[in-house]
Amino acid sequence: MNDRKRIRAAVVGLGYWGPNLVRNLHASGEFEVAALCDENQKRLDKFGDLYPWAKRFTSATEMLQQDPPELLVVATPVKTHRALTLAGLEVGSNVLCEKPLASSVAEASEMLELAAKMGKRIFVDHTFVYTGAVRRIKKDIAAGALGNLFYIDSVRINLGLFQPDVDVIWDLAPHDLSTLEYVLGTRVKTVQAIATSNNPRGFADVAYLHLEFETGLAAHLHLSWLSPVKVRRMIFSGSKSSLIYDDLEASEKIKVYDHGVSFDVSDIEQRKQVLVSYRRGDMHAPAIDTTEALATELKDIAAALRGAKNDAATGEDGLAIVRTLEAAQKSLAAGGTKVSTTP
Amino acid sequence: MNDRKRIRAAVVGLGYWGPNLVRNLHASGEFEVAALCDENQKRLDKFGDLYPWAKRFTSATEMLQQDPPELLVVATPVKTHRALTLAGLEVGSNVLCEKPLASSVAEASEMLELAAKMGKRIFVDHTFVYTGAVRRIKKDIAAGALGNLFYIDSVRINLGLFQPDVDVIWDLAPHDLSTLEYVLGTRVKTVQAIATSNNPRGFADVAYLHLEFETGLAAHLHLSWLSPVKVRRMIFSGSKSSLIYDDLEASEKIKVYDHGVSFDVSDIEQRKQVLVSYRRGDMHAPAIDTTEALATELKDIAAALRGAKNDAATGEDGLAIVRTLEAAQKSLAAGGTKVSTTP
Amino acid sequence: MNDRKRIRAAVVGLGYWGPNLVRNLHASGEFEVAALCDENQKRLDKFGDLYPWAKRFTSATEMLQQDPPELLVVATPVKTHRALTLAGLEVGSNVLCEKPLASSVAEASEMLELAAKMGKRIFVDHTFVYTGAVRRIKKDIAAGALGNLFYIDSVRINLGLFQPDVDVIWDLAPHDLSTLEYVLGTRVKTVQAIATSNNPRGFADVAYLHLEFETGLAAHLHLSWLSPVKVRRMIFSGSKSSLIYDDLEASEKIKVYDHGVSFDVSDIEQRKQVLVSYRRGDMHAPAIDTTEALATELKDIAAALRGAKNDAATGEDGLAIVRTLEAAQKSLAAGGTKVSTTP
Amino acid sequence: MNDRKRIRAAVVGLGYWGPNLVRNLHASGEFEVAALCDENQKRLDKFGDLYPWAKRFTSATEMLQQDPPELLVVATPVKTHRALTLAGLEVGSNVLCEKPLASSVAEASEMLELAAKMGKRIFVDHTFVYTGAVRRIKKDIAAGALGNLFYIDSVRINLGLFQPDVDVIWDLAPHDLSTLEYVLGTRVKTVQAIATSNNPRGFADVAYLHLEFETGLAAHLHLSWLSPVKVRRMIFSGSKSSLIYDDLEASEKIKVYDHGVSFDVSDIEQRKQVLVSYRRGDMHAPAIDTTEALATELKDIAAALRGAKNDAATGEDGLAIVRTLEAAQKSLAAGGTKVSTTP
Repeated sequence: MNDRKRIRAAVVGLGYWGPNLVRNLHASGEFEVAALCDENQKRLDKFGDLYPWAKRFTSATEMLQQDPPELLVVATPVKTHRALTLAGLEVGSNVLCEKPLASSVAEASEMLELAAKMGKRIFVDHTFVYTGAVRRIKKDIAAGALGNLFYIDSVRINLGLFQPDVDVIWDLAPHDLSTLEYVLGTRVKTVQAIATSNNPRGFADVAYLHLEFETGLAAHLHLSWLSPVKVRRMIFSGSKSSLIYDDLEASEKIKVYDHGVSFDVSDIEQRKQVLVSYRRGDMHAPAIDTTEALATELKDIAAALRGAKNDAATGEDGLAIVRTLEAAQKSLAAGGTKVSTTP
Repeated sequence: MNDRKRIRAAVVGLGYWGPNLVRNLHASGEFEVAALCDENQKRLDKFGDLYPWAKRFTSATEMLQQDPPELLVVATPVKTHRALTLAGLEVGSNVLCEKPLASSVAEASEMLELAAKMGKRIFVDHTFVYTGAVRRIKKDIAAGALGNLFYIDSVRINLGLFQPDVDVIWDLAPHDLSTLEYVLGTRVKTVQAIATSNNPRGFADVAYLHLEFETGLAAHLHLSWLSPVKVRRMIFSGSKSSLIYDDLEASEKIKVYDHGVSFDVSDIEQRKQVLVSYRRGDMHAPAIDTTEALATELKDIAAALRGAKNDAATGEDGLAIVRTLEAAQKSLAAGGTKVSTTP
Repeated sequence: MNDRKRIRAAVVGLGYWGPNLVRNLHASGEFEVAALCDENQKRLDKFGDLYPWAKRFTSATEMLQQDPPELLVVATPVKTHRALTLAGLEVGSNVLCEKPLASSVAEASEMLELAAKMGKRIFVDHTFVYTGAVRRIKKDIAAGALGNLFYIDSVRINLGLFQPDVDVIWDLAPHDLSTLEYVLGTRVKTVQAIATSNNPRGFADVAYLHLEFETGLAAHLHLSWLSPVKVRRMIFSGSKSSLIYDDLEASEKIKVYDHGVSFDVSDIEQRKQVLVSYRRGDMHAPAIDTTEALATELKDIAAALRGAKNDAATGEDGLAIVRTLEAAQKSLAAGGTKVSTTP
Repeated sequence: MNDRKRIRAAVVGLGYWGPNLVRNLHASGEFEVAALCDENQKRLDKFGDLYPWAKRFTSATEMLQQDPPELLVVATPVKTHRALTLAGLEVGSNVLCEKPLASSVAEASEMLELAAKMGKRIFVDHTFVYTGAVRRIKKDIAAGALGNLFYIDSVRINLGLFQPDVDVIWDLAPHDLSTLEYVLGTRVKTVQAIATSNNPRGFADVAYLHLEFETGLAAHLHLSWLSPVKVRRMIFSGSKSSLIYDDLEASEKIKVYDHGVSFDVSDIEQRKQVLVSYRRGDMHAPAIDTTEALATELKDIAAALRGAKNDAATGEDGLAIVRTLEAAQKSLAAGGTKVSTTP
């Protein structure tokens, strides 16, 4: 809470995620929930009753025209992101958009171009980068705590929910991609994708993505809507120590294993003379900041709108993810060949 | 124990695994440990002291010539399997060989051909197919308990041990491949392999294999020598229920989840009209036969040598695994393209 | 939701638990949140804003006089339960009171007597008895699935929170006691209590209660505010099978082990001739109804107020728990001797 | 291994535990397995075949008379400990005796007296005090890493095995008691015991022991032969940090939680003015020495026999445990009253 003027925000889309955004906007003390929009009148009224001061709209166009907000929050299906974001930018709003930012690189690029032209900001709701756990991982890697990274393996699987408009890659991979690009501070360079489809719509419902980052590091993602158990686990294997991030652990989300492998090449000509030594050391589970990610996110976005430089995920971050998703789609179509994220 | 004449067995290779084989041969009541062979005299004597009646040799050739066993057990590094097996067959022995059966399809084929010519049997030590857990999985799948299989995901990772002569694929994948071919009753048709190498020898130390079986079913393997934690877990995702096999669980190695996903296509023309329904039901962990796998294996092999038809893993099973390993090697060299296991 | 007239409810106490009650009263469709009361004006207003139609009071007396509710919900510290409940009954309200019902048997008895005199109902908020897990356990026990019960062990431990007005027994034991009396369908007959105190107030912060039920069955409770890890686990050991209830498990709260121990006494005179046999069978984790307990509770209370007979926890159930708590207090003072719950 | 003369040892009792002792005596390089004794000739021969140089006896008396060993190892049922130990001491042997040392304080005292008179040593096989985990706990406590200890809770439960001659207290408690006395460096002063019996022999098969040490610290033990799951877990709750020792964990047996509770009494007269503050910090799982406990034990015993002062568990340690067991038995008979371990 503070004395500064609150930033006027309007939210479009009150389905699964929108209400969480509204609740946090209201609680942040930084924003005023000025307007709410959903094409479903019943849902709009039911939820709107909790925020009696906010104006209600079933049309986003009408909402934007009547009273352009300083921040338009877009929490609708991905196919509508482009049109809503462009409309918001046109009336002079900044935009916070759900992930993935758009359905294609072309769409995302168009959105970023208009934002640049209008002098407005786009933020993308990469929620995980605002969690205490992910911020801690970034810090540990930056401090060299893991040594030289060998590889990263990520598993994000559970039963359903099948999305009506996107496949399992577009649904789940943005979480891993945004997390990894954030903690590594680099972008994905190439993707190889393999998937299977077990549903009549023909969408991928199980997928494996093999990523190579600009730095040469490799990461592998297992994504599935068809697993009987829910798993959210990343392994960061390093030369000095290794880290496991298990998002389903209540109190020990991060475990750092002081294990190591070192290779001593006595005769470089004769590479066979390699002495491998292992170290099995302590395990350490640091206490993690448990602030709700959305609270941190909105605080960061408010600060960014007020001029601060910080880690708030930008349109460029959103575009980068869409580049990888689109490359994965191409790799899939080509039978798993390596596809670059840049044309 | 029984009154039948024991089968005279000779074991070559007393490193890590050989002593387990000797102990189980002796305990089975079916075999007589007639001779032991290891080129390291000290190791031979130390271990030989526990079986004072067995003759000791530092040369396998000498051992085979002096007194050909009915069963030659080969527990040496893979590069020596061909020569030892051929030598054993030449003197009229049947052979039980460590996995993988050979270093190449060519080698394995040569071994099977000589066995056929000599009228002798080759068995391959695919230990997992003799465990209570794997036999239960085979039974459940055969009985239709899982319904239609969607996909299989297997993780076999831990820290080390780096093998001196093979990469992580040749070291770890035989376990998964032999288990899967056994429980599914079918062979791998194509492989796509991706790997990373973090050691100076340039061997793959982390690998992902994507398999397609003759039946069209897909399976994915994560193999690693660079994981801080040990995982041995297979997920069999099915339409009726799903099964998780965790080999590190002491008492609940198999969990069957009575969860399901069903798709109801109301309008086949309009594939978008798909109703997805989920069922989250009970979980069931059957009691598993805990007989040591090697005990079952040697009992099965003894029975096979006495004429029975049973599930003992044969040279053909061993050759099939080598076909997949070789195809994986080719896929790796070709950047992850799909490679057939048959020429 | 239905067309019936909603039951007018007033809630006093908007601290930790009260808001949950209000949210569920509102969501149930059975109650109207007519009035809210908290002596802290700021808390009252902050929370009251979400229910703009409800009248707000800082004095319960005033609230009861202005407009007596059909159901008074008491969510205040235990020392105030008696006065508030009596006041509610006096104006003709039924009462739903937080657990434990009162600070002493004398108080609780007084409350029940006035309710009887006024022809009104007292309910006590024994939340656990409305969970899917506890209802399933009751059903399994009643159906004889466990056979003859040997004993029950319960662990309810974590770090804090130290309560300002009650010790660890009065704070935590009501959960176990209400759960056990409900699933067993019987009352505690005797208690032995041992405790340690590590805080300057001299309150028990770690306690062990040994209970004997009317049926002769024994149960043991470990209660602690000083454990580094949180545990919520009950073991029901039975002759036919055993059940473990782990309330912290997300998806497998109940596990039924088809293990058994049977005793075969060949010569009853010579009791030493006992043949013990063990059976280690399957484990089964039934799917549990995951409806929020408070939703079921309020539905049951509404139904009870409309005349139905059901499992809603009554004042008698609340009094029984207070009897055991008071007996535990006496046992503690007497060095752990066995104390009866009935005078 | 070393050049020193090996200590001649004889082992009586080749049931469950004896063979482990023999294997470790042989492997230690410190002892010579000179003689083996078991009244069951078949068992004696089967096991004796692995140590062909050792003399075999079916009578301990005969064995002791023919060739008195320097160390007699007694691995027989508890009721025979006294006679065998006395017989060994009489012929001038030192004795390593299974736990519990004897069936009563009287017996144990008699054994210690004869040892003193003969100038010989008694060791008791308190295996846990030689594990890397328990030694680490002792070190951590001694270094003040836990701060002020609040209490200790131990759970040692599983399904069976019912022992033919002792109840669950005499069977399982010695492990906890020896571990706790060792890590705390103090003795149990009083015991309160509660138990239930569900078997026709009338033995306790579930028991709870509440201990108070000389220092005033309390510990609570849950012992059971009737639990569907196996648990081996001790909680050491401390003011600075808390430690959990889970003996069933493969790689993280000890977890130290840097959590704390502190009490700030602003007004000592008004004890109600207590400010409780919590700290939830990191968790740390140190790497533990995984040497087999028996190997360390025998090395320590050999060193003690050669004159060293070390942590080898002595007859006095064994007697202390028997004192507590006998006191527990008395408490049980008296309905759970507090019984002193010293007359």
